[in-house]
Amino acid sequence: MINELRAVNIGICGLGTVGGGTFSLLQNHEELLAARAGTSVKVKHVGARRDNPECPTGDTPVSRDIFDVARDPDVHVLVEMIGGTTVARELVEAALRAGKHVVTANKALIAEAGNELFALAAQHGVALRYEAAVAGGIPIIKALREGLAGNEIHWLAGIINGTGNFILTEMRDKGRAFDEVLKEAQALGYAEADPTFDVEGIDAAHKLVILASLAFGIPMSVDAVFAEGITKLTPEDLGYAEELGYRVKHLGVAKQSSEGIELRVHPTLIPESRLLANVNGVKNAVLVEGDAVGPTLYYGAGAGAQPTASAVVADIVDLARELAAGQLCPVPSLGVAPEALKSPSFVSMSDVVTPWYLRLEAEDRPGVMSEVTSLLGEQGISIEALIQKAPGTGQTRVPVIVITNAARQGDLETAVAAIEALPTITGTIARIRVESLDG
Amino acid sequence: MINELRAVNIGICGLGTVGGGTFSLLQNHEELLAARAGTSVKVKHVGARRDNPECPTGDTPVSRDIFDVARDPDVHVLVEMIGGTTVARELVEAALRAGKHVVTANKALIAEAGNELFALAAQHGVALRYEAAVAGGIPIIKALREGLAGNEIHWLAGIINGTGNFILTEMRDKGRAFDEVLKEAQALGYAEADPTFDVEGIDAAHKLVILASLAFGIPMSVDAVFAEGITKLTPEDLGYAEELGYRVKHLGVAKQSSEGIELRVHPTLIPESRLLANVNGVKNAVLVEGDAVGPTLYYGAGAGAQPTASAVVADIVDLARELAAGQLCPVPSLGVAPEALKSPSFVSMSDVVTPWYLRLEAEDRPGVMSEVTSLLGEQGISIEALIQKAPGTGQTRVPVIVITNAARQGDLETAVAAIEALPTITGTIARIRVESLDG
Ligand SMILES: NC(=O)c1ccc[n+]([C@@H]2O[C@H](COP(=O)([O-])OP(=O)(O)OC[C@H]3O[C@@H](n4cnc5c(N)ncnc54)[C@H](OP(=O)(O)O)[C@@H]3O)[C@@H](O)[C@H]2O)c1
Ligand SMILES: NC(=O)c1ccc[n+]([C@@H]2O[C@H](COP(=O)([O-])OP(=O)(O)OC[C@H]3O[C@@H](n4cnc5c(N)ncnc54)[C@H](OP(=O)(O)O)[C@@H]3O)[C@@H](O)[C@H]2O)c1
Repeated sequence: MINELRAVNIGICGLGTVGGGTFSLLQNHEELLAARAGTSVKVKHVGARRDNPECPTGDTPVSRDIFDVARDPDVHVLVEMIGGTTVARELVEAALRAGKHVVTANKALIAEAGNELFALAAQHGVALRYEAAVAGGIPIIKALREGLAGNEIHWLAGIINGTGNFILTEMRDKGRAFDEVLKEAQALGYAEADPTFDVEGIDAAHKLVILASLAFGIPMSVDAVFAEGITKLTPEDLGYAEELGYRVKHLGVAKQSSEGIELRVHPTLIPESRLLANVNGVKNAVLVEGDAVGPTLYYGAGAGAQPTASAVVADIVDLARELAAGQLCPVPSLGVAPEALKSPSFVSMSDVVTPWYLRLEAEDRPGVMSEVTSLLGEQGISIEALIQKAPGTGQTRVPVIVITNAARQGDLETAVAAIEALPTITGTIARIRVESLDG
Repeated sequence: MINELRAVNIGICGLGTVGGGTFSLLQNHEELLAARAGTSVKVKHVGARRDNPECPTGDTPVSRDIFDVARDPDVHVLVEMIGGTTVARELVEAALRAGKHVVTANKALIAEAGNELFALAAQHGVALRYEAAVAGGIPIIKALREGLAGNEIHWLAGIINGTGNFILTEMRDKGRAFDEVLKEAQALGYAEADPTFDVEGIDAAHKLVILASLAFGIPMSVDAVFAEGITKLTPEDLGYAEELGYRVKHLGVAKQSSEGIELRVHPTLIPESRLLANVNGVKNAVLVEGDAVGPTLYYGAGAGAQPTASAVVADIVDLARELAAGQLCPVPSLGVAPEALKSPSFVSMSDVVTPWYLRLEAEDRPGVMSEVTSLLGEQGISIEALIQKAPGTGQTRVPVIVITNAARQGDLETAVAAIEALPTITGTIARIRVESLDG
């Protein structure tokens, strides 16, 4: 039992995109939020090492040392909007130790240090909330932690990096190359100056770890994710996939079965009729398969100042309601009490079973396809669909596109190595996983 | 402050589709739910006037008088799975008065008597939860009440009756007539024996009232909804809509603007590229436009024993977490405290502005279209798209399909009456509203 508060005081550290968006959303909706929270919610202190010209702070006190906010006895909730896992971690720890509740949008921090930080929060009797850390404004954390609590979750699959989805959408719609679209995304402010986190799947991996932890009741397991980015995709592959009735999306997939848990981020062919196949541009969506409810899907803006602030403020309103009533809601940070978290066993990637898309360049003469088919067959892999293109004028090589049936990755790799060794096949074979995403 | 509970005892009244589904979900997931709730959750008492052969109750005590459950001092949470607004209302009132928390899936009851029931619950210091009342297993109540709390909601639009959506999907995919598909839906158990609630939009109206109440912070306003069903739709209209790039869906639409609030349920043309246009069969989806987050969408099974039980059990897990900790979470039933609810003013249907789809049967001779255009023009209505079909052999009349620009319904009706009075026009004009659903 804590004291009932008449006004809940917020400290915001970091006044960049999301911090600035949160500041202005709290200012603009003061009355609405007071009605919803049942108490007034005030920004009492901002920590920012420099001003943000797009976010004037008026007469709100601003400290250049962000740690001053963690030390401010008047601040009840510290909102960490710095990013990264070094200073942000120190700041969050300082706030929790000082008995402040913390709200963050920092997926890297939660995925990498969540296990320790939730324990620290519990030790100090305060809350650490992170709705904004995954899929921006979509309330997916609350859906998994509370709304789907009656289900055993079998799997989930999400488009959880807006920049990557923007790039793939542009490549498909306009047949443009990866590098060119990446430059545009940077110019539009979607991608970071260093885009590695987005395009190599690291950002999506952080988010997937958080989703999987909630879905399966396991600790954050950042070392267990396989991450493959979108840098090797070509407009040709996107086009061939489309001819076969698929779209290529960069998915985070978490699955739980008797074999163990799979956590993987990679480009994926999905049937074009699926809703996920029609999530375009910077939008995100997460499809969750629960045993009772079946598939449910959550769609919306996965990034941007205001959408992300929407999720940050949802956490703030929850906390304000609780602080006004004098008691935190007893919802565990990861949906189950820490001692009830399961020790996960993970499936190694070579044992993961999916259908595959393969693109090979073959000599255009009889017998080649039967060699390919028989090398796949030796590994127990059969063919679901195949396109063989006519050779261009004067060309003797043709692109051959194969969709296999479900195959163990290890077996597929053995077959691919054998096919690449054929004298009739040129270069390496492009491969992309396929997911049917049916319930 | 209430006593902390070691085990939370559930009483289920009504053992039909949803009651039976809830009973078995609670049994099957005993361990999982105990981990999530942090306490054991037990069905202690069932009230059912007869056995349900599909849901054996084992050694759980069963009373034939459902009110015995409301009187059972060992029951902490009564789950009302009866339906309707008479006996169900008495039961819920009896339970609340007896100091029991109540969980229900009964949208008719919440829409019609929610204002009184929430007040009664508050008076007795107990909770009344209703996640399952709208859109089955989709956690849309929680999303609006908590996940989007940082937003002013501008509008929402939902496919919120699975039976209706199943019928429209079949009509479109197979060109079948309404009556025929309705019979199949009844045979499949989707539609009630008396299908009026589904096909006349009454069920959707109840759900829309609940969604609007949460979105806009207003009391339940069941008298303010306009409801039009799907009984007059023809496969031809669905086909013409498709030629023009639209799909016809039965939508519940709630909008808030400076003019007031609109609450309406009706068939609607929506652009085929929208995610809602691709929600098929018995699935539901709700699209919500918030000022900060932009559009978000929630998709899943809107009915059925297990999906609906998923939502019922989510409410039970929330309550069990709270009861185990000894205090209810201070989230108001409608997202704001009762005294903060706004007195809504509603827009009358004649003032509602939307584009329209019109289908007329006209004589195939010069000048007819210009008469139609000028009668629309007199009301300030312009034409966005038009298809004029060639006459069948031996026919002198042709179908003409018009999509208008946005028009006041009153003006549209005046123009339509004038057009119907033309000697060159046969019969009445079919009309369906259009919504672009963009943010
Ligand atoms: N942007 C999105 O759409 C989005 C969506 C979801 C989640 N997030 C997460 O939200 C967090 C913030 O992201 P953002 O996009 O708002 O980043 P941003 O625009 O770069 O803002 C970060 C802010 O933190 C300040 N900062 C960084 N390191 C600091 C330090 N050591 N000491 C003091 N101040 C420091 C920066 O100050 P300077 O300007 O002086 O460097 C800047 O004002 C990250 O965890 C990110 O992953 C972002
Ligand atoms: N079905 C769905 O997919 C769905 C989805 C969302 C919400 N809901 C809501 O869930 C509630 C239950 O629906 P349902 O589909 O489960 O209906 P149902 O299958 O008809 O079950 C209703 C149960 O209540 C019993 N009952 C009805 N009136 C009673 C009375 N006066 N006294 C004692 N028992 C009575 C019935 O007993 P008898 O068998 O003896 O008549 C039956 O067992 C309704 O409010 C409905 O709107 C249903």
